[in-house]
Amino acid sequence: MFEITDTLIRTFRKYHIPMSRPDAELLQRMIRAGRGGEPADLVLKNAALLDVITGTTTTTDIAIVADRIVGTHATYSGKTEIDVTGLTAVPGFIDTHLHIESSLVTPFEFDRCVLPHGVTTIVCDPHEIANVLGAEGIRYFVESAEHTIMDVHVNLSSCVPATNFETSGARLEIEDLLPFRDRPKVIGLAEVMNFPGVINTDPGIIAKLEAFQGGHMDGHAPLLRGTDLNAYLAAGIRTDHEATTAEEAREKLAKGMFILMREGSVSKDLDALAEILDENTANYVALCTDDRNPLDIGEEGHLDALIRRLIAKGVAPHLVYRVASHTAARIFGLMDRGLIAPGWRADMALLSNVNSCQVEMVISGGRLVTPELFAARHTIPPVGLDSMKAKPVAPSDFITEPKPNQNAVPVIGVKPGLIITFREEAVLASTAEGLQPDLDKDVIKVAVVERHGINGNIGRAFVKGFGLKSGAIASSIGHDSHNITVIGASDTAMARAVNHIIEMGGGFCVATDDEVRADLPLPIAGLMSLEPFEVVEKHLESLRSEAHKLGCILPEPFLQVAFLALPVIPHLKMTDRGLFDVDKFDFI
Amino acid sequence: MFEITDTLIRTFRKYHIPMSRPDAELLQRMIRAGRGGEPADLVLKNAALLDVITGTTTTTDIAIVADRIVGTHATYSGKTEIDVTGLTAVPGFIDTHLHIESSLVTPFEFDRCVLPHGVTTIVCDPHEIANVLGAEGIRYFVESAEHTIMDVHVNLSSCVPATNFETSGARLEIEDLLPFRDRPKVIGLAEVMNFPGVINTDPGIIAKLEAFQGGHMDGHAPLLRGTDLNAYLAAGIRTDHEATTAEEAREKLAKGMFILMREGSVSKDLDALAEILDENTANYVALCTDDRNPLDIGEEGHLDALIRRLIAKGVAPHLVYRVASHTAARIFGLMDRGLIAPGWRADMALLSNVNSCQVEMVISGGRLVTPELFAARHTIPPVGLDSMKAKPVAPSDFITEPKPNQNAVPVIGVKPGLIITFREEAVLASTAEGLQPDLDKDVIKVAVVERHGINGNIGRAFVKGFGLKSGAIASSIGHDSHNITVIGASDTAMARAVNHIIEMGGGFCVATDDEVRADLPLPIAGLMSLEPFEVVEKHLESLRSEAHKLGCILPEPFLQVAFLALPVIPHLKMTDRGLFDVDKFDFI
Repeated sequence: MFEITDTLIRTFRKYHIPMSRPDAELLQRMIRAGRGGEPADLVLKNAALLDVITGTTTTTDIAIVADRIVGTHATYSGKTEIDVTGLTAVPGFIDTHLHIESSLVTPFEFDRCVLPHGVTTIVCDPHEIANVLGAEGIRYFVESAEHTIMDVHVNLSSCVPATNFETSGARLEIEDLLPFRDRPKVIGLAEVMNFPGVINTDPGIIAKLEAFQGGHMDGHAPLLRGTDLNAYLAAGIRTDHEATTAEEAREKLAKGMFILMREGSVSKDLDALAEILDENTANYVALCTDDRNPLDIGEEGHLDALIRRLIAKGVAPHLVYRVASHTAARIFGLMDRGLIAPGWRADMALLSNVNSCQVEMVISGGRLVTPELFAARHTIPPVGLDSMKAKPVAPSDFITEPKPNQNAVPVIGVKPGLIITFREEAVLASTAEGLQPDLDKDVIKVAVVERHGINGNIGRAFVKGFGLKSGAIASSIGHDSHNITVIGASDTAMARAVNHIIEMGGGFCVATDDEVRADLPLPIAGLMSLEPFEVVEKHLESLRSEAHKLGCILPEPFLQVAFLALPVIPHLKMTDRGLFDVDKFDFI
Repeated sequence: MFEITDTLIRTFRKYHIPMSRPDAELLQRMIRAGRGGEPADLVLKNAALLDVITGTTTTTDIAIVADRIVGTHATYSGKTEIDVTGLTAVPGFIDTHLHIESSLVTPFEFDRCVLPHGVTTIVCDPHEIANVLGAEGIRYFVESAEHTIMDVHVNLSSCVPATNFETSGARLEIEDLLPFRDRPKVIGLAEVMNFPGVINTDPGIIAKLEAFQGGHMDGHAPLLRGTDLNAYLAAGIRTDHEATTAEEAREKLAKGMFILMREGSVSKDLDALAEILDENTANYVALCTDDRNPLDIGEEGHLDALIRRLIAKGVAPHLVYRVASHTAARIFGLMDRGLIAPGWRADMALLSNVNSCQVEMVISGGRLVTPELFAARHTIPPVGLDSMKAKPVAPSDFITEPKPNQNAVPVIGVKPGLIITFREEAVLASTAEGLQPDLDKDVIKVAVVERHGINGNIGRAFVKGFGLKSGAIASSIGHDSHNITVIGASDTAMARAVNHIIEMGGGFCVATDDEVRADLPLPIAGLMSLEPFEVVEKHLESLRSEAHKLGCILPEPFLQVAFLALPVIPHLKMTDRGLFDVDKFDFI
């Protein structure tokens, strides 16, 4: 033990190995087993080892001691031996940017559900829960990360709240982040979404950037180009997952930005970006999901789905598996993993089919992944079970009066599958209960109810494109401040849906005037379920089905409801403080 | 300031940026200048920027604030502007493994001499000086590294002494290395040459490996293959610069070892290894010189010579420039450099010819490299000026008695350009002054005189292949324990040469029976000169010339003398303790 200054700490050049810090005795065991002089702990016999550097495949044993590979390209014996004849071994996959909260389950449940897809490492940004619970949310994730089987790393949310145009549950300045900066599972600063703040050298953001100089900073810079992009990068920000065209991605690559190619439930960029991945760029791009919900995970998979897609689009498999593992590792300074080789972390996926990324077996930190492994985990108690502080609402709370001299009313235009919205308008009937929906024109009400116990705001407007003919849909997931967003054909159904969510402590709800038709309780900060993944999937299917019965034509209504309140995605959005024009970056 | 445990320190994930830790004010300046809103500090106008990822070249300005690039692919103005029309900008070169001592000058003089070749970063192992001075030698290098213009990084010498078969000036165990481990310019553990010790889990080496787990460890594993190589790698050792065939390099690459392709004055592997460098491997190999003397630097260059050579052999230029910069940086965790892009360290070489790597201008940490820049440095006083502790010798000290019943005498066989020696023998005349050289058969004497003041050993034997017809050649550089090695046709000349070296405090010497014909004082630990590079070059030319006049047929006699005492390179070597059979790994 010795005393050391902040400055000295920050000048360390240390590679993070969360587990593998073997002492002398374990190190000797690793060396002896690598040499073949004593049995390894675990040997995968007859694996087809895919070399992600050269693309060649070699049949060999893979010997493991503790969490480290100790031998390849030789024959080994082990205390445990698994014959993997017919399976191809690739390095475990790394999701370089995601929000676990979007899976609607706890980090532990995410672990159980996603690790079997071969995703052995993730880098997450807990800004959803941080927007509700502040530092307590980050603490929950950082501590959970120390107990999952999957190696979970956490970046510290840089933009809480996302903007000042909504009421979030918390605000995180640099002083709130610093206590976490040197925790073992923390890498650096999470996606710096406030790119105007960076470029305009806003003091709060500058303070965060200053504290992470010399460390890793993730970026989020959709459509940022030219000298504005240069300014953003001059701050030392290194990655971007928001590029949506190959041309934008190429400019960013030319400017030293690592492109995290994204395919999630909300944003699907792989089709547009796949062309940028070739032999030259394969050490400068990686993969991420950002937000991926349980239905998509259940139906298509997680990062394995991205791998499958890229290979189907014609990218050489060894390059795809490389970006999914080693390139990702090196971007984030995880120098111990990403290759199946002696001395490297024993994270592997065993595939029965390389091209379709069919994962049959996963090794995580040298452990065979089984249900028993998850069952034996120490878990952290959930937090934020009392985050829902809104008072019950009445139907009259959704009465929307016309403005004086207002003929046409602004309407948020929604299109299927897009989180971008469009500026529309409609002439609506006005009654004693204010402006009325026009179901023939598919114009219904939208409202956002502040629920952090701060001001009880209710923002009210109109939305078009959902197709709802009756009833209401409500969600306490509303990016990023996560107030309660509700759309509806009647004030009564809207109130019922909102009140049910308040009762549940958070969640999704489909309701009519008379009853709740389907729901999903999300009592952890109003974002995550206490239930297993399979239960959540069932609720989601039911919600989707009931929403469609009420006339909703969107394939993923809850996803699109969840983004109605996000004031950084154009063009017209609803927050608890009112209708927001993103292009003018102000309220209407 | 806060107290922190070793374990916690070692779990940090920090990228080392030796200079660029801008405070808020500087960060704001960087951002504003990147945006073009205010002048940068330095702008290179009209540079042809070679993108080492894609291979494309774009004409653009490059804007720099302090030591950081803040803008590319745009037009900028700067407080200082340099028109570099016609020059191609590439990221500065990184020599990934070398011993500065082999340049025969101080780190400061090395800086002045080599940085103008475009070598903006080096990773050195000071084991030569450590073998003489111990920790004091490392301290000198680590402190010098904080004041050179070139960014010098130091790995901590892992094998001092190299073996127990020679008398070195010091011994470094893990306790001696630990105080340096967290110094800003220190990366990790230097080349672990004692691979038998690793594989056989020798406790002293295990202790060093244990202390650097999670950090960077360089390897040195010539001809190590199969499960022996696996065992070595299982320890976490990550690089190798000793591969001499493409086949050996490919096995190592397949096992996750970064190949540092070496071309120095002693070892020249580029011809054999060039074929392994392609689009797949270009992020897994790098370049190094290991040992490069002033004549070679003066005549051919430094890392620029390697680049030139690889391009001449047909490797795509952008791949060569990539391995010379960005790949090298990432292997060693230098996450801040290796690309010419906003937010990256401003280390660049400006070339008038890309294919021949003709360096016209160098930017180092944002500074234009000029003689004035070097002149303004704060330098560290030299150390080890009293390291030469041997007492003067007499000609009779070199009398070599025949062994009883010995007919043929073992002779070290030397061939031009090789540091490998061969086992030969000769029948020699025996007189009152012992066994006699046989000049017709080109068999002369060799001796190693211990000079650290420890035991006064003199090892004596015979050597063949130098061609010397009279006189003696002596050197206080004798890898790795750096005692005084002397070869000669007469005892008198040998004594004169050795005594002159003792008088100088170390160096090279060519002498006859009657006089010293040429010398080079190396008073810093008996390894380095106090003089500028140009003076050293002149002395070396004179020494070479005078040695040839005495009959020496080797093009580089001093190089080959310097390796006569290295007991880890086969097959027959001379140490202060006697004639050593490397294959049997014991004395004869």
